[in-house]
Amino acid sequence: METQGKLTDRECAELDAHWRALNYLAAGQLYLRGNPLLREELRPEHVKPRLLGHWGTCPGLALVHTHLNRVISARDLDALCVWGPGHGAPAVLAGSWLEGTFGERWPDVGRDEAGMTRLFEQFSFPGGLPSHTAPEVPGSIQEGGELGYSLAHAYGAALDNPDLLAVCVIGDGEAETGPLAASWHANKFLDPVHDGAVLPVLHLNGYKIANPTVLARLPEEELDALLRGYGHEPLWVTAEPDTPPHRVHRALAAALDEALERITAARRAARAGGGAGRPHWPVLVLRTPKGWTGPRELDGEPVEDTWRSHQIPLAGVREDPERLRALERWLRSYRPDELFDEHGGPRPEVLACVPRGDRRLGANPHADGGRLRRSLPLPGPEAFAVPVERPGASSHEPTRVLGGMLRRILEDTEGRRDFRVVAPDEAESNHLGEVFAVTDRAWQGETLPTDRHTGPHGRVMEVLSEHLCEGWLEGYTLTGRHGLFSSYEGFAPIVASMVTQHAKWLQSARQVPWRAPVPGLNLLLTSHAWRQDHNGFSHQDPGFVDHVLNKSPDVVRVYLPPDTNTLLCVADHVLRTTDTVNVVVAGKQSCFDWLGPQEARAHCARGAGIWEWAGTERPEREPDVVLACAGDVPAQETLAAAALLREHLPELAVRVVNVVDLARLMPRSAHPHGLADAEFEAVFTRDRPVVFAYHGYPWLIHRLAHRTGVHDRFHVRGYRESGATTTPFDMVLRNDLDRYRLAMDVIDRVPGLAARAAGVRQRMQDVRHRHHDWVREHGTDLPEVADWSWPGS
Amino acid sequence: METQGKLTDRECAELDAHWRALNYLAAGQLYLRGNPLLREELRPEHVKPRLLGHWGTCPGLALVHTHLNRVISARDLDALCVWGPGHGAPAVLAGSWLEGTFGERWPDVGRDEAGMTRLFEQFSFPGGLPSHTAPEVPGSIQEGGELGYSLAHAYGAALDNPDLLAVCVIGDGEAETGPLAASWHANKFLDPVHDGAVLPVLHLNGYKIANPTVLARLPEEELDALLRGYGHEPLWVTAEPDTPPHRVHRALAAALDEALERITAARRAARAGGGAGRPHWPVLVLRTPKGWTGPRELDGEPVEDTWRSHQIPLAGVREDPERLRALERWLRSYRPDELFDEHGGPRPEVLACVPRGDRRLGANPHADGGRLRRSLPLPGPEAFAVPVERPGASSHEPTRVLGGMLRRILEDTEGRRDFRVVAPDEAESNHLGEVFAVTDRAWQGETLPTDRHTGPHGRVMEVLSEHLCEGWLEGYTLTGRHGLFSSYEGFAPIVASMVTQHAKWLQSARQVPWRAPVPGLNLLLTSHAWRQDHNGFSHQDPGFVDHVLNKSPDVVRVYLPPDTNTLLCVADHVLRTTDTVNVVVAGKQSCFDWLGPQEARAHCARGAGIWEWAGTERPEREPDVVLACAGDVPAQETLAAAALLREHLPELAVRVVNVVDLARLMPRSAHPHGLADAEFEAVFTRDRPVVFAYHGYPWLIHRLAHRTGVHDRFHVRGYRESGATTTPFDMVLRNDLDRYRLAMDVIDRVPGLAARAAGVRQRMQDVRHRHHDWVREHGTDLPEVADWSWPGS
Repeated sequence: METQGKLTDRECAELDAHWRALNYLAAGQLYLRGNPLLREELRPEHVKPRLLGHWGTCPGLALVHTHLNRVISARDLDALCVWGPGHGAPAVLAGSWLEGTFGERWPDVGRDEAGMTRLFEQFSFPGGLPSHTAPEVPGSIQEGGELGYSLAHAYGAALDNPDLLAVCVIGDGEAETGPLAASWHANKFLDPVHDGAVLPVLHLNGYKIANPTVLARLPEEELDALLRGYGHEPLWVTAEPDTPPHRVHRALAAALDEALERITAARRAARAGGGAGRPHWPVLVLRTPKGWTGPRELDGEPVEDTWRSHQIPLAGVREDPERLRALERWLRSYRPDELFDEHGGPRPEVLACVPRGDRRLGANPHADGGRLRRSLPLPGPEAFAVPVERPGASSHEPTRVLGGMLRRILEDTEGRRDFRVVAPDEAESNHLGEVFAVTDRAWQGETLPTDRHTGPHGRVMEVLSEHLCEGWLEGYTLTGRHGLFSSYEGFAPIVASMVTQHAKWLQSARQVPWRAPVPGLNLLLTSHAWRQDHNGFSHQDPGFVDHVLNKSPDVVRVYLPPDTNTLLCVADHVLRTTDTVNVVVAGKQSCFDWLGPQEARAHCARGAGIWEWAGTERPEREPDVVLACAGDVPAQETLAAAALLREHLPELAVRVVNVVDLARLMPRSAHPHGLADAEFEAVFTRDRPVVFAYHGYPWLIHRLAHRTGVHDRFHVRGYRESGATTTPFDMVLRNDLDRYRLAMDVIDRVPGLAARAAGVRQRMQDVRHRHHDWVREHGTDLPEVADWSWPGS
Repeated sequence: METQGKLTDRECAELDAHWRALNYLAAGQLYLRGNPLLREELRPEHVKPRLLGHWGTCPGLALVHTHLNRVISARDLDALCVWGPGHGAPAVLAGSWLEGTFGERWPDVGRDEAGMTRLFEQFSFPGGLPSHTAPEVPGSIQEGGELGYSLAHAYGAALDNPDLLAVCVIGDGEAETGPLAASWHANKFLDPVHDGAVLPVLHLNGYKIANPTVLARLPEEELDALLRGYGHEPLWVTAEPDTPPHRVHRALAAALDEALERITAARRAARAGGGAGRPHWPVLVLRTPKGWTGPRELDGEPVEDTWRSHQIPLAGVREDPERLRALERWLRSYRPDELFDEHGGPRPEVLACVPRGDRRLGANPHADGGRLRRSLPLPGPEAFAVPVERPGASSHEPTRVLGGMLRRILEDTEGRRDFRVVAPDEAESNHLGEVFAVTDRAWQGETLPTDRHTGPHGRVMEVLSEHLCEGWLEGYTLTGRHGLFSSYEGFAPIVASMVTQHAKWLQSARQVPWRAPVPGLNLLLTSHAWRQDHNGFSHQDPGFVDHVLNKSPDVVRVYLPPDTNTLLCVADHVLRTTDTVNVVVAGKQSCFDWLGPQEARAHCARGAGIWEWAGTERPEREPDVVLACAGDVPAQETLAAAALLREHLPELAVRVVNVVDLARLMPRSAHPHGLADAEFEAVFTRDRPVVFAYHGYPWLIHRLAHRTGVHDRFHVRGYRESGATTTPFDMVLRNDLDRYRLAMDVIDRVPGLAARAAGVRQRMQDVRHRHHDWVREHGTDLPEVADWSWPGS
């Protein structure tokens, strides 16, 4: 290939011109609102009134962008880049503008003087773009605000994209985070046959906001050992402040060529068959001075190559003529006249390295993954639905049955390879093991005869890191593919902040006209709070739902299917959605079947509805009370309470309501799934007391059902942070979510009932006390609870 | 030292007896409810009806426990051990029982047959202990349920405990998590002069629940490189299923001796002065078969050394006589008759290696850190309070002033070294930089002339990992010392789940009679949602408060001081608390001073109160409306709204209320800081409309203020997930938290006011529209907003 080996002087000059242009454009975004081409002397009014943004990492990112352009062009690579360093947006935006993709996506920011002015003005300006990559940035697939997820995103993008190269620039700040540190081992899960390649570029920028970085200060042999320990072969490129740029260009070009040759060789070996083993993929270590090419010093203090260049290296330029001159000298050091023509467009030599069309980093279709999305071939819930002779007559483990459906989807996408299941070593524990009938867990490590279902081409991803699981799936869906992440409910909050960032990305992306919708992010929370019999208190946290419901209602959906068939319907639904975060809470333990296949579909379509068969309503009048529930354990306790009331207070008109889609409780004005007031009243009545048994923290129901006149008549039971190593019924009892307590709540809340039902109420309370003693003696639930089943209608 | 070099045969036999005893006791906890000493043939009724628990990691942990006992005894070490492997509690409980500490703490579980029976029975039994280390376990300092935090906890324990050895057993499952992966680099922050040592023991157990582990399947040279890359010198001990135990004992004893010699040498070199540089601390790599010494196989499938030994290796033993015999053979393989005397107590040779008194792992006082806690020498808020001539006449950056107070505490604890400040590279950014006047950032890496305030003995801990910061501080406070973690508010959810685990620990620990209270965990959330001018949407998440307030009210406190002096009072208060998680939300940007030193103290003591000077109440009657606020930006907007109302509707009686301590809103029955109904009414009136401006997601206020008759008259404004790169006032405007909107809310909600004040209302709405246009044109706030100040009373 012509550009391999040494760069010609001309190539070197062209790369340098491109790099200088990016640096100029990046600095311009930080400072300028006028005179963008420095056609005249810089005056205070050309400078933004408020200087916001970050310079420190920009020159390094610009350098990577320039050199990626070269190799993409030369090798016709299908490549995207994940820009990890938090505050490098000016360099990335500069690259996008220069290659033309920014102007194509945002037509008023084209490649001329007016467009350059707008590019500069909008940065860190109200209504403009933030200081890190965001959905508005062409070619970006990650919300760059919170650090830690770049490498996991890159691996997610590479999975099942055999021809893709996902470059990932990792800042030495981000490298200190836990999620990033865990992500290095993702190379043990990357299949060189079916997956693309990931090329990490560890950018040793030297300083964070105010501190040196850990990795930049390691002795070189220690960092080398670390990267080899991660399974990589390091290639080193180092620039000091005084290194002539052409030397760096030559070194970086050679290192990139070498890395790409090794990737090609590893792929070729793996795809030729014959068990080449796990490749030791290259990693590029790029050491450049922080704020390189920026001001060397200020007021006698060094700036370049120090933490002082992190944000605005020269402040107060509008006020201080000396500093204004220093800024102008700095900007002119890039020689803008050589870079841009009389209209402000880039000169041809600046663009010599830029790839064409969709090969440009801002245009790669994988980075606007919705463009590549194909709907999944879904078998539909009926194909796996369990027959239900009558409500409560049989039991199934909901997630086990779901496992069958996932298996089918994996089978039906075997050729397309656009569906993955991820879990933190919990797929089997969460009873989804049937997927292993058709695929393995992805595993490139050593395999022993005692292993089960691990193999190099598997499509289930299991690693004991919720962060890595979530990051993989985010990267996979952002590039247009589908998946499901199953986790213990109690540990889902580990990724609360990651999911926030993804939800914010989706919320913003929905406003970006050129972004196509991407598949929903599906989280199955199972092994939930109510059945942690031996793990106890530490494994009980149903608060993830509260966390996500604080995020945009345009994006977030939460489902609590009460049984097996409803779980199938919900799963079928969420796998069809786009631009959503779908949280599904469902148990893995044996659970009564309440609804048959048709009933389940109808009930899930409504999202919330009356279970007539469970209540004792008379057609001619409003019920006396509504027993409502959301979640599988609450549904069981609610039905048991309804059965108790039917038996002991047969004259009471009880309505039983189940809510699958939590957002249905909200007003329509607050969430697209919300119920209009009239619909809400049709289910929950206008004024009757509602005893609501909820799976999680009870106040969430009050919040969602927040409507005039609702608050004081809703009485909600749920998890209230009382947990232990104990039995299933003891758990609901401790939290006042048990059937007896719910029935007692009804007695307490239906006007006039308390006196009449005092004896019944006392007997219920007696059972609760009896259970309390029994469980401590026998370690099991009272037989009358353990053996309970729905008496039928 | 006599035990160095080779073990004698007798020592080896004694260690083996101890190890067998632990294994026996661990297996006994999984299976037995009777016949604990196998005095008779095992019958089904001796076996627990429900087999819950985990065997796989126990033999390895037991081996470590045995050998730690030896070296602690031989070297008179002051040592504690953090047991990372999630499900190893039976081995740890066995060790504690055997050394006698369990029975000393829990007198009905003494070292006799009855005590052994109770030890077995209570495990994974209702009311008993879970399958991982918990506060009830003597010697434990971490809630072992959620994986990832062991190594950070060990480092936190070692800080400022120069004679302590913190051993940390890291499971190869946990090692895959992000927080653990990040924690390896904590050795760059450990001061060999003032801090203790951390000895990581990487336990390669081979399998997780169902998967092989990444680290166990690395080629040995790759793992070796990885650990060297982390800055450690690895020592290897490997046991195969067929390795005779005595060989493993000898190898492990030699490796431990070698490790301890190296630690002693490193300490000595550092403490002799002369710049020995960062030590390359030893790490022990211990490879043992999962479920070692347990059943070899079952039904023709291998069990030992596979994932099948993760939980209960032999199930169905009550039902299947064959399996019952297999269980008995397994248990008898430890030769219990040789281990326990006729009363069920351990024989002397079993206890030969066990240290005495407080040297026992279950008795080390650092592991019950409250016993070592000393109250901080606190200067009091007045020493740093800013003078306030009249409300709003001056401004300060609250966290900057707090920095002065933290500096003083660091000075006053310089000799004691029991106070640390931690932050993810944000102490300076969060305006706490004054601390660096008296101490450095802890840093053992290379130092350059351009560094500022980094040094080997610094007491500020900065690393770009919220997980590591939180883990350090947890370990530090659990061992009885004090600290403060400052973080960007938006990224605090990164550690949501960690904080949950700590809160659960504290909640449980409060019920453990022998545990002394430990210092509160103090989280300062700053750089908050309302002032992310250039970071924008991704940096805006005020939901951490919602998350923690779902946890136990006995433990969790949340404060939102509205200005500088109140922040000082709150900080002074939280640093005096024990067994709490204190969340303080305060801005770093310039903020009006509302309260003088005395007023601030009185106001914070009340937690919520009326600001008479700000309102227009008449003494003779109830106000027409209450304008309430919590948080600094809401306080400013609320006061500006009050000023608008005073100017434009002077006849309106407005009460202004500020809430510092969010829990004051709760009923006294729900939180110890809650207000009784009469107190609540004295502040918020009985029936007047309340317009509440809150810093975070608005529904939290509804939840906290959940009392009869309150819901519908509280109208709450707050952050509603509308953010961008924009100006401060545009942020409040977008979220309807601005002064004009609050004043309009008053007009809309005070009966009869709407018609009368229609003109005023319209003018307010006009300003809002004008601002909307202005900010998009100028990038700044409207001058009348930007230049606003409180007009005084």
